[in-house]
Amino acid sequence: MSTLLSGVAASAGIAIAKAYRLDEPILFVERRTIENSDAEIVRFQEMIHKSRAELKMIRAKAEQHIGDNHAAIFDAHLLILEDPEFLLSIQHKIQTEQINAEFALQETVDMFMMMFEQNDNLLIRERAIDLYDVKTRLLAHLLGAHLPNLSLIAEDVIIIANDLTPSDTARLNPLYVKGFATERGASSSHSAIIARSLNIPAIVGVKEGLASINHGDMVIIDGFRGQVHINPTSDLVKRYESEQIAEQAITSKWDHFVHQPTVTKDGHQVTLAANIVSEKEGSSVLFNGAEGVGLFRTEFLFMGRNELPSEEKQFQTYKSILVGMQGKPVVIRTLDVGGDKDVPHLHLPYESNPFLGYRAIRYSLKEPVQFETQLRALLRASVFGHLKIMFPMVTTLTELRTAKMLLNKVKQELLNAGTQVNENIEIGMMVEVPATAIMADVFAKEVDFFSIGTNDLIQYTMAADRLNERVAYLYQPYNPAIFRLIKMVSDAAHNQGKWVGLCGEMAADSIAIPILLGLGVEEFSMNAASILQVRSYIHQLSQTEMRKLAEAVLHMETAEDVQQFIQQALNDVC
Amino acid sequence: MSTLLSGVAASAGIAIAKAYRLDEPILFVERRTIENSDAEIVRFQEMIHKSRAELKMIRAKAEQHIGDNHAAIFDAHLLILEDPEFLLSIQHKIQTEQINAEFALQETVDMFMMMFEQNDNLLIRERAIDLYDVKTRLLAHLLGAHLPNLSLIAEDVIIIANDLTPSDTARLNPLYVKGFATERGASSSHSAIIARSLNIPAIVGVKEGLASINHGDMVIIDGFRGQVHINPTSDLVKRYESEQIAEQAITSKWDHFVHQPTVTKDGHQVTLAANIVSEKEGSSVLFNGAEGVGLFRTEFLFMGRNELPSEEKQFQTYKSILVGMQGKPVVIRTLDVGGDKDVPHLHLPYESNPFLGYRAIRYSLKEPVQFETQLRALLRASVFGHLKIMFPMVTTLTELRTAKMLLNKVKQELLNAGTQVNENIEIGMMVEVPATAIMADVFAKEVDFFSIGTNDLIQYTMAADRLNERVAYLYQPYNPAIFRLIKMVSDAAHNQGKWVGLCGEMAADSIAIPILLGLGVEEFSMNAASILQVRSYIHQLSQTEMRKLAEAVLHMETAEDVQQFIQQALNDVC
Repeated sequence: MSTLLSGVAASAGIAIAKAYRLDEPILFVERRTIENSDAEIVRFQEMIHKSRAELKMIRAKAEQHIGDNHAAIFDAHLLILEDPEFLLSIQHKIQTEQINAEFALQETVDMFMMMFEQNDNLLIRERAIDLYDVKTRLLAHLLGAHLPNLSLIAEDVIIIANDLTPSDTARLNPLYVKGFATERGASSSHSAIIARSLNIPAIVGVKEGLASINHGDMVIIDGFRGQVHINPTSDLVKRYESEQIAEQAITSKWDHFVHQPTVTKDGHQVTLAANIVSEKEGSSVLFNGAEGVGLFRTEFLFMGRNELPSEEKQFQTYKSILVGMQGKPVVIRTLDVGGDKDVPHLHLPYESNPFLGYRAIRYSLKEPVQFETQLRALLRASVFGHLKIMFPMVTTLTELRTAKMLLNKVKQELLNAGTQVNENIEIGMMVEVPATAIMADVFAKEVDFFSIGTNDLIQYTMAADRLNERVAYLYQPYNPAIFRLIKMVSDAAHNQGKWVGLCGEMAADSIAIPILLGLGVEEFSMNAASILQVRSYIHQLSQTEMRKLAEAVLHMETAEDVQQFIQQALNDVC
Repeated sequence: MSTLLSGVAASAGIAIAKAYRLDEPILFVERRTIENSDAEIVRFQEMIHKSRAELKMIRAKAEQHIGDNHAAIFDAHLLILEDPEFLLSIQHKIQTEQINAEFALQETVDMFMMMFEQNDNLLIRERAIDLYDVKTRLLAHLLGAHLPNLSLIAEDVIIIANDLTPSDTARLNPLYVKGFATERGASSSHSAIIARSLNIPAIVGVKEGLASINHGDMVIIDGFRGQVHINPTSDLVKRYESEQIAEQAITSKWDHFVHQPTVTKDGHQVTLAANIVSEKEGSSVLFNGAEGVGLFRTEFLFMGRNELPSEEKQFQTYKSILVGMQGKPVVIRTLDVGGDKDVPHLHLPYESNPFLGYRAIRYSLKEPVQFETQLRALLRASVFGHLKIMFPMVTTLTELRTAKMLLNKVKQELLNAGTQVNENIEIGMMVEVPATAIMADVFAKEVDFFSIGTNDLIQYTMAADRLNERVAYLYQPYNPAIFRLIKMVSDAAHNQGKWVGLCGEMAADSIAIPILLGLGVEEFSMNAASILQVRSYIHQLSQTEMRKLAEAVLHMETAEDVQQFIQQALNDVC
């Protein structure tokens, strides 16, 4: 009998594959007295060698799948396995106390971890986490336990987990991971966004029953309906296989849109761009029909490593994207950390409400040396393509002016030193804070473009944390208040002859797109996998009609009213 | 030599008094073997009696100063001191192990605390905190250490502390506490608000030097300039004493405004109301010239106790306020918990961003039984005065409609049971969420009044936690975006013939008042101590002029521009 579980459909599509349980094994360590401590030390050293070899392989795979930045985390693990103080103190313990390697390892690591955790230096405290990961790996080998490792997966699987951390998703190999289902998470959480960007189906927030799935069970993920089928009947598998084929047929129908412009049926042209997180995506999005990059999130350059990326490292990354995009426009956003994006080596403070705290441009302006390094790398890269620079979370005009002043200062320094810099870089800002949207007329005079970050704009406008399930009903993209703010931004930009993009989840949403078109949004930036579908959709719409719809939406009372109205209207016009 | 420290001026005024350090004493407990365990048990029992007597006195004082609700916390402490299981296990330990009472107490309490803290039940986990407080009190007696106790203060003092918790401020006796200075906190933190409501000067966020103040040092708190003087010279004391006298002269100049209406010099009348947190303030605010209560925060009825207040308890409180206000209007706000206001027995969930979470009406609508109890108590009390009911944190029209539906349902039930209910209760809502201000035209059709809660509205509009010092520069009451939102609310209300109040800190702010008057705000609700000063101020302003100022402010670029402009303009017009 197949079992059916329900959750939140976080990324569309169908996947059929074996379950891969991403559980930490329970590693139970007993103290045993041993007779031959020399033999035990040899056993211990063998496990060290084995773990080292394993880590090197994982590192290589990770680099290949997800880029050097994300792979750097494994270097820290390797360093521990090569640390003589660490290795010798365990061997000393085995010998003097005549105990088993597992127990000596556990006691030694626990002592080091306690020391690290009590240290004032956050970098040292962070090492405790690495040490814990290394201990788990060694213990698993010593005890012969199965240790799940996303980077080692080499067959088609569906990941089943309590949650996927950013570090987990960084290790996902999209070649083999066909989908995932998690107990935690919401449609707007990090793992859901990654799933959509990798174009694999995902179900999150599966409240019950996920624990009953065994490693190796056959599983179907239905990312259209938010369903997980465990051990499906062969009939069900057949039905889903036909649906997969039908889906692929639709997808291939969009193929001819790859090199077409994005034009409404009444001739209004807009731009569809891609959101990317890694230079590896830089050129691949062209195959998805991207007319540019609307958002490169540079914070991923800073994550998963123990130190700041150097100016040279950043320069190479930015250059590589610009070159890869072959002259198409690339909007690179300066560092956006804080909120739900922690970067341990930046030592961000603990905050009661991180979403209302020290993040993005607020952080960069307080760390001008880091900020100027990033700006210098960007300016140096600017001659290799069509770069636009964008500042995140700008709240006041003073912040914008300070950021622009620093940019100009760095530019002058480069020019004085004889370094070439593109003189015509457009400077833009994110509109994510309600105050910024309300004051858009003032900001429009001092930037070249706006990019509306709807994910944050919605959560601040509705005062509802987008990751908090208890207030998920208030995270309303279709609330008329959101469209009224977008109209303010759009009108303000156009009055000054500037353009408006939008790079939140709404950019690929079939209810929102007609309204956004009607409000005059010029660029829609989304995960590359959605571009062709959206282009095909926009080809069916008329901007004149959409303007009327948008006008009506601005006078509606609730999000539900908007949704019903648009659905009804599309049935009539499409 | 006097020493000068700087901080944030959180509440105006001058205080000169001895320092009272609110530090936890360091209680060092050693294990000692004793010969006569019976004598040690007697010593232990004496301390129990002493602590019990002390707690009863504190409880009585607390009830007198701050009301029964806040005093209930000490009942929990008394219960522990009467718990036979607790007392006997300590005595048993003294006897069987032949050890000193301090050590037996410490070991026993630690064991209980560990058990409590690991319990699934939040109520039991909370008991660990009570137990800790009781242990500290007993140990201080046993060790002869000085235990600071706000409720026991019986001479003029200035409190010096790292921070004041809501529970500390609940125990402040305004008769003797002349002011306070804390290391932590911002101008908008709870302790600062309480200081302003008690009308005592306060400096918060004193980053350096507070530790150097000794218990008993003479201290001057300058709540105008944000300064703390330690051991001032007699010259400095004299200078500040003259300033105090001058201040009092100004204050008594305002006395004749007590029974006057609040009218601008060109004849426009507005209402000045009081924000209150306890029924004890119900009538005293009349002496401060309040023309009503603009905000009764009912959450304080729910705090500092271990269970929900019964319908009868709530009814008596509401009735007492309505009667005390002698027919003047009283706006009672339904429960506003969550955010920074935790109420342990309500079992609110842990949240990553509580300010963007499960709070206020969001909570009440998910707990309809509790909500209906409150509504029933309010409706029953409505016949005893001029009640208006207000819902906090309304974000969507659906929430407002649901709340009103529940209110009508409860009203019908009461009427059917033959209970008298006032038929003409005005129903209003707070405007604290940007979406609500933006959609005010839609809401205005379905409420009788708005009350703009600027403290929250500012923090959401600027995406800056009002308690987070790192982003304090972004918590900008004068940002033009805030005034644009207030204009939307005011226009929307007036188009529907409704009125607009404002109950945040801005209501008593000399820069904001002229703009708010100009935007058409009709009611300003503030701590009662500010009312006469604000009335005197408004008497000097002209609404016609203020309308022009407000119009200009709406087109300004930054908060700094607004502040300078108003200061300049007031120099010209006043």
